[in-house]
Amino acid sequence: MIKVGVYGASGYTGLELLKHLLFHPAVAVTAITSRRYAGVPLTDVYPVFQGLTDLTFMNASPAEVARLADVVFLALPHGVSMTVAPAFLAAGKKVIDLSADFRLREVAEYERWYGKHAAPVLLAQAAYGIPELYRETIRKASLVANPGCYPTSVILGLAPLLKAGWIDTASIIVDAKSGVSGAGREPQVASLFCEVNEGFKAYNVGGQHRHIPEMEQELATLAGCEIRISFTPHLLPVNRGILSTIYGSLRPDTTPDELTDLYRRHYQDEPFVRICKPGAFPNISSVCGSNFCDIGVTIDKRTKRVIILSAIDNLIKGAAGQAIQNMNLICGCSEETGLTGISRFP
Amino acid sequence: MIKVGVYGASGYTGLELLKHLLFHPAVAVTAITSRRYAGVPLTDVYPVFQGLTDLTFMNASPAEVARLADVVFLALPHGVSMTVAPAFLAAGKKVIDLSADFRLREVAEYERWYGKHAAPVLLAQAAYGIPELYRETIRKASLVANPGCYPTSVILGLAPLLKAGWIDTASIIVDAKSGVSGAGREPQVASLFCEVNEGFKAYNVGGQHRHIPEMEQELATLAGCEIRISFTPHLLPVNRGILSTIYGSLRPDTTPDELTDLYRRHYQDEPFVRICKPGAFPNISSVCGSNFCDIGVTIDKRTKRVIILSAIDNLIKGAAGQAIQNMNLICGCSEETGLTGISRFP
Amino acid sequence: MIKVGVYGASGYTGLELLKHLLFHPAVAVTAITSRRYAGVPLTDVYPVFQGLTDLTFMNASPAEVARLADVVFLALPHGVSMTVAPAFLAAGKKVIDLSADFRLREVAEYERWYGKHAAPVLLAQAAYGIPELYRETIRKASLVANPGCYPTSVILGLAPLLKAGWIDTASIIVDAKSGVSGAGREPQVASLFCEVNEGFKAYNVGGQHRHIPEMEQELATLAGCEIRISFTPHLLPVNRGILSTIYGSLRPDTTPDELTDLYRRHYQDEPFVRICKPGAFPNISSVCGSNFCDIGVTIDKRTKRVIILSAIDNLIKGAAGQAIQNMNLICGCSEETGLTGISRFP
Amino acid sequence: MIKVGVYGASGYTGLELLKHLLFHPAVAVTAITSRRYAGVPLTDVYPVFQGLTDLTFMNASPAEVARLADVVFLALPHGVSMTVAPAFLAAGKKVIDLSADFRLREVAEYERWYGKHAAPVLLAQAAYGIPELYRETIRKASLVANPGCYPTSVILGLAPLLKAGWIDTASIIVDAKSGVSGAGREPQVASLFCEVNEGFKAYNVGGQHRHIPEMEQELATLAGCEIRISFTPHLLPVNRGILSTIYGSLRPDTTPDELTDLYRRHYQDEPFVRICKPGAFPNISSVCGSNFCDIGVTIDKRTKRVIILSAIDNLIKGAAGQAIQNMNLICGCSEETGLTGISRFP
Repeated sequence: MIKVGVYGASGYTGLELLKHLLFHPAVAVTAITSRRYAGVPLTDVYPVFQGLTDLTFMNASPAEVARLADVVFLALPHGVSMTVAPAFLAAGKKVIDLSADFRLREVAEYERWYGKHAAPVLLAQAAYGIPELYRETIRKASLVANPGCYPTSVILGLAPLLKAGWIDTASIIVDAKSGVSGAGREPQVASLFCEVNEGFKAYNVGGQHRHIPEMEQELATLAGCEIRISFTPHLLPVNRGILSTIYGSLRPDTTPDELTDLYRRHYQDEPFVRICKPGAFPNISSVCGSNFCDIGVTIDKRTKRVIILSAIDNLIKGAAGQAIQNMNLICGCSEETGLTGISRFP
Repeated sequence: MIKVGVYGASGYTGLELLKHLLFHPAVAVTAITSRRYAGVPLTDVYPVFQGLTDLTFMNASPAEVARLADVVFLALPHGVSMTVAPAFLAAGKKVIDLSADFRLREVAEYERWYGKHAAPVLLAQAAYGIPELYRETIRKASLVANPGCYPTSVILGLAPLLKAGWIDTASIIVDAKSGVSGAGREPQVASLFCEVNEGFKAYNVGGQHRHIPEMEQELATLAGCEIRISFTPHLLPVNRGILSTIYGSLRPDTTPDELTDLYRRHYQDEPFVRICKPGAFPNISSVCGSNFCDIGVTIDKRTKRVIILSAIDNLIKGAAGQAIQNMNLICGCSEETGLTGISRFP
Repeated sequence: MIKVGVYGASGYTGLELLKHLLFHPAVAVTAITSRRYAGVPLTDVYPVFQGLTDLTFMNASPAEVARLADVVFLALPHGVSMTVAPAFLAAGKKVIDLSADFRLREVAEYERWYGKHAAPVLLAQAAYGIPELYRETIRKASLVANPGCYPTSVILGLAPLLKAGWIDTASIIVDAKSGVSGAGREPQVASLFCEVNEGFKAYNVGGQHRHIPEMEQELATLAGCEIRISFTPHLLPVNRGILSTIYGSLRPDTTPDELTDLYRRHYQDEPFVRICKPGAFPNISSVCGSNFCDIGVTIDKRTKRVIILSAIDNLIKGAAGQAIQNMNLICGCSEETGLTGISRFP
Repeated sequence: MIKVGVYGASGYTGLELLKHLLFHPAVAVTAITSRRYAGVPLTDVYPVFQGLTDLTFMNASPAEVARLADVVFLALPHGVSMTVAPAFLAAGKKVIDLSADFRLREVAEYERWYGKHAAPVLLAQAAYGIPELYRETIRKASLVANPGCYPTSVILGLAPLLKAGWIDTASIIVDAKSGVSGAGREPQVASLFCEVNEGFKAYNVGGQHRHIPEMEQELATLAGCEIRISFTPHLLPVNRGILSTIYGSLRPDTTPDELTDLYRRHYQDEPFVRICKPGAFPNISSVCGSNFCDIGVTIDKRTKRVIILSAIDNLIKGAAGQAIQNMNLICGCSEETGLTGISRFP
């Protein structure tokens, strides 16, 4: 059994990690931490676990957790992960970090968007945790930077086109929509039921969202040239799910069927990417509850633009599920282990 | 008092017309028709009207309704309005049609998107009912083609930029999201609660939506040249509201404040268009329940694109409210009469 | 014009008061206060008011507000209203308090459920503000205790039966369900979108809710004897609306039609109470957005119990709307002035 | 492997059965039928299954399905199951019927509430499929009548009290609330998103709901005497979940802790019933997605009534999950096999 700790386990990402880890056949969860809920049984905070576990939140140092676990998930805010990761790595543990702290390769870029970095030397060590892009690197990594939710949907949505050189890299516009769980469980007016329900708005408009450098870093790597995208996130009145609608100018004169073929070939061996048949497009309700990324593509002949729709569950493929996929790679489990959940629809 | 009939009054648009008309100080509703509910009191179909009216649905011919009303709203599907409008016009009545039948000036364009037109001669007579664009024409019109909900949000959102020539007309992409009431009250699986709730999807992807020619017609008129846009509608799990996120390449080197000024000047005398201050953007929850269109604009400096957010209540400014605004113009009422509703938030 | 102040105007109740007061033809809002938002324009906190008002929140003492207003609404938490009401009354102003501070006639009862009372002498002066019960008293009052939201629905639902003596007063069970706006706008985990959406639960189970003494006080007055009820509130995943399902043993051997008649006669002159026809029952969606209370009644012949369904908008008839109804009475306006809103459905 | 057929598999219950059966380690789904979707791949109707199965809907007779399957689930409307069950039983197959057709022991009672019964002789053969009540009978049965969703929540909620004789059997009132999936996937106005969302209403008020005889039959068996309950169902604007709030007069002078103990002892060996600790009560969001029934109990000392809150997922413990629990019993699998799903919250 893999002894697993979750550091900072009381938020929605921690909850989702635990929901999967407790049923993972090769995992024993040996430590969960939370400052706020130190000493409180997990079932008191999340009654969904009633009858399933006796775990209690600890307020423990990295050193204490390192004694209990071989693999540690960090479900902490950015800026905090970088302060605890070094201790785990020094103790020879594997670390899967769900914050933004190790996702950017350039420290300058990190500091432009987030602020001072406390462990810049680790940036070169971290594997960017999209298995569909970096599977072999992840297998050998001690530190995985688990990707952001928006980037996961956008990078998977654009990878085949960029690899094939079929899209004008200066033309990419991403209009993304996310469920509310992406905002976390901190009480704030903007996340109250009455503020969100029956509403819909954009936020971080005008190229302000911190996931932009992460997306551009990976898109540029795929394309082999620098890329600037326009990215506008919106807040959907649903618990979960991201749908990214991606626009770009098509380079070759191709057809929707050829486009679909390109995507099918690109992802033919991937267990968690599903390509919709021509004319069909994903609904977040078909992926929420699962680790799938569903992608539909077509062409607007009138404007010669390609349109890509990419849907994930922001808490699963966009966070906890992908993190476990990475753990499976690191630990030599089959990549799908513990990730067989199917959509919750209806 | 203006004697008003609503032809085809039992759907959500009819309901919204009646909710406003029954409280309009200059209006007496004299006839409401419905085949399905002929003989049924309005309060039986919509208990919201209990205690407020004794109106009963009639199954009446245009001739019968023409005897009872001087202004007639047609809340019928496209293809049906064109068969009843001529009778009302021949009887000297004013007609405000909420279908698509008289929105396109070119009969060929109508027939390309919708099918055979039964009254093409009326197309030249119809005023396109966006008061902010065609106020004086509407005042003198006998037949008003009330705009589509998506086009209202998009045309109002782009008019200042196109008039000023500040946007590359080949670069426009519209990513629009609408509440479910836009799909009407016909029972169909796709509109069931469980199919929509906790879901989100695009539809008519790839330049398939019938509102495209209507938008392009009006955008071209504003710009003085042909325009092709990319338009992708999405279904939001809310009852009401449209948010259109519009992208385009900016021509001059300007600032978000100058952009906001342009919009403020353009709409300074308009009672129903509100421009957000720089850095603020609309939420559908701030317009739903009202006839307002709220618009926020900014610039993505990294990509030199302008981003426009335009929000309306699809049933009010996108349908019934704008229709009454047009009726007020035709009948010489102050344009705001009966349209003082404020947002329902929360 | 009546000069009106709203003391503590930044929550959902304050918002709803202002949405109605700004359109009330006999009212000028002269002062709105908020500590948190002192100096902030109302439109910055609630963009729904954009273009409609220049009001700015003040951090003002009761004395300052008393100089500006003749009628003051207190939209404050319980325990706070009692500390400011005396100053307004001493200045000869009319006070409509939306907290619980002046609803209970017995100070001991107040202190049992809420804690120490700072102005017990005012309890005898306060009129309990359900116009359908105390219209004439309210007209002459200087201090109105605006009822709780649950009590409004329950008291209006039971009044005809209790007055007629048709119900066993020991048998009353109230199962009530409320939308989330009843919990206010304070950020707390329990009110977050993800905690409420797709959920449903009871709270304050076992006779714990503070609205119980208020209901029992008024039900006892109606019945002419002491009453103990079982009351269980539940949290509905909607923004607004209360539906109370009320059960009791029927005394006479009567029919649903006779029962409906009893209710119709009882409320025949009431502008804001609507009785459903036999076999029909209210939906909160038919009252939300309006000041109506919709009531449906029937008999379960198998168990000889009466079942009463009573629906209101918790922010309107359950708070701000009823407060304005009371203001209209106090100020000699027609009771319906400014309260003509119709349900927002859909 | 158990060869399993699902007869009438295209509705929400069929969908939920398939979501569980396809992952059940001892099951091979060999036939799914649907008249409407005959010849259509399952993934076309429900894209959630993309990549997981090649099943296609058949329009097949019971005889044809009987050749393919050893256990058959009937997910058909009442009145239809009774016409196909005999053929399966005659062929020696095991039948688990999710309709109401075999739930009532008395044919007269069935015909009073539902209409003519076509196979009354089978009523005596059918096991009522609540394993917590009839585990041993179910193991040996060929025909299981899978209980209604409301009855499951109510019977499990009342069983310990009735067995112990702690509740006045004449005093029971059930106020139940269900999500919309309970209404099925047939298109009808009342199930449209806009009709349900932001609404809440009771239906079948006054002892009209067809689940009443089923509940009374089982409650009477538990109590050893006839029982008449008052039952009022309500429609919650959520996809899934039932919460039943149950009231009754308490016989002994006991405490909430003793009450909780009674429940804990009663259900101590049950894998799918969880008793909340004293003072805690279930939320549907903690059971939805799982086969659990969560129960909380307390006493209203002021009125000497017991209040029981019982929550299930109407599609799982209230339908498909319980059906599979029954299949596991019949087939000798461990009762929890294939039912390890945990709540979907958030």
